[in-house]
Amino acid sequence: MKLISFSRQGANSFGAVVNEGVVDLGARLGLAELGAALRQSGLDAIQELAARSPADFALAEIDAFRPVVADPDKILCAGLNYDEHVQETRKQRTERPTIFLRVAASQTGHEQAIVLPPESERLDYEGEIAVVIGKGGRRIAEDKAYAHIAGFACYNDGSIRDWQLHTSQWGPGKNFQSTGAFGPALVTRDEIGENEVLTLETRLNGQVMQHATTDMLIFSIPTLIAYCSSFVTLAPGDVIVTGTPGGVGAKRNPPVFMKDGDVVEVEVSKLGVLRNPVRAE
Amino acid sequence: MKLISFSRQGANSFGAVVNEGVVDLGARLGLAELGAALRQSGLDAIQELAARSPADFALAEIDAFRPVVADPDKILCAGLNYDEHVQETRKQRTERPTIFLRVAASQTGHEQAIVLPPESERLDYEGEIAVVIGKGGRRIAEDKAYAHIAGFACYNDGSIRDWQLHTSQWGPGKNFQSTGAFGPALVTRDEIGENEVLTLETRLNGQVMQHATTDMLIFSIPTLIAYCSSFVTLAPGDVIVTGTPGGVGAKRNPPVFMKDGDVVEVEVSKLGVLRNPVRAE
Repeated sequence: MKLISFSRQGANSFGAVVNEGVVDLGARLGLAELGAALRQSGLDAIQELAARSPADFALAEIDAFRPVVADPDKILCAGLNYDEHVQETRKQRTERPTIFLRVAASQTGHEQAIVLPPESERLDYEGEIAVVIGKGGRRIAEDKAYAHIAGFACYNDGSIRDWQLHTSQWGPGKNFQSTGAFGPALVTRDEIGENEVLTLETRLNGQVMQHATTDMLIFSIPTLIAYCSSFVTLAPGDVIVTGTPGGVGAKRNPPVFMKDGDVVEVEVSKLGVLRNPVRAE
Repeated sequence: MKLISFSRQGANSFGAVVNEGVVDLGARLGLAELGAALRQSGLDAIQELAARSPADFALAEIDAFRPVVADPDKILCAGLNYDEHVQETRKQRTERPTIFLRVAASQTGHEQAIVLPPESERLDYEGEIAVVIGKGGRRIAEDKAYAHIAGFACYNDGSIRDWQLHTSQWGPGKNFQSTGAFGPALVTRDEIGENEVLTLETRLNGQVMQHATTDMLIFSIPTLIAYCSSFVTLAPGDVIVTGTPGGVGAKRNPPVFMKDGDVVEVEVSKLGVLRNPVRAE
């Protein structure tokens, strides 16, 4: 099942996409946000409700996509999780995952602008796969991790490179408003096999910039879930962004940064294409 | 005015402490959380309501303190913001503030346990001053920043040192559950002069471990507000934790880590004493 968050007629909601129609689950549950629904009702109830409900309107009738989960309690991002990216940044592999945080306010939706702020000219893409937690927990064992996943979506961990490197901590460069694109849809876990290899590709103005498969992840999705849940209790709706492959713009020769009018796409097999125009503020 | 978040008779609420009584503002506003009230009603309305309402019960009748703001949209923490701490960590001053993030789930309240997890033996204190945002905004100028502050509170940015240093990014060591103590109360801005120097002291089992004054901050509170609001829109209830002075346990010779049964206190002039027992999980 594909779940989207959207705005329509001035209100926020979320729903299931069935063919080209949308079952408005937010209206049925009296909740505007998918994260809140995952926390309060759970994925099973959401999927059952969607399965027995008719479409309310056509997908073309929504006004805008919002981030797949616009209200996560936490967004935990893995850095340096593909060898080619470790090498291009002249770093070394670490024994544990590199984890930094994003805030929800840094996110944007499918087809919405990724914003180049006036503070910088160094806006870079990072195509990634996001995991959304369905069943919360603390100290989740790797071999039990798959059952805690609600589903997957494409993510563009847009980064302001100079602000990322102001100090040792990447937070500022990873949290500019409207730089983290998340969409188009949450594809629920039942559509993806437990050990299925997904293919990730990032395109800038149609040109392939990054290409990798999930078997190249240094720390697998279950390992990331186990590690993060060691320190924090994962809640339904939490997002784990799994890291970007080699080929980021900042490490090209010459460097490539995104500018006003560009179009960036992150495509993941079975998860669709996340497409965003770039707009200078 | 002093605002606290608490639990009582199985429910969460927040209120104003007047003498030894509590005005239950959460019950009056139909909101369990101070952060939500700051976002929805604003500080002025909260203070006006408190000023015209009688106390509902004695402070001794609450069951437990919760983090002053238990539901912040963001917690932005400054690192390396006092010279003595920069020196003891053998780092260099940076031109911009070092900012990392905490998640709300990592917080705990006054008199609640700071938890030493089984994953580590390296739980350290960091006495700090927290600023709570009252009026949101993006790109707030330094000379306008004071007006955006709701108030101040003591903070203990409890850190799991080995997990903080697993990789270059400090997130894991700064986000263990129930390690960030925040309290006892939000002291509203009108009680603190705009350029007033506050004194901060951290005590472990009664022994002074850290002592500093806010004129020693490398990046002042207005500078931190201006820098953080460059990348993210600050919302009412957001928390900026301003950094710890020299004297942390990990950099002592021999190192001092907190253990089960310890009591740690962070005292700030005008803000009171934040006291937490340490409990091994």
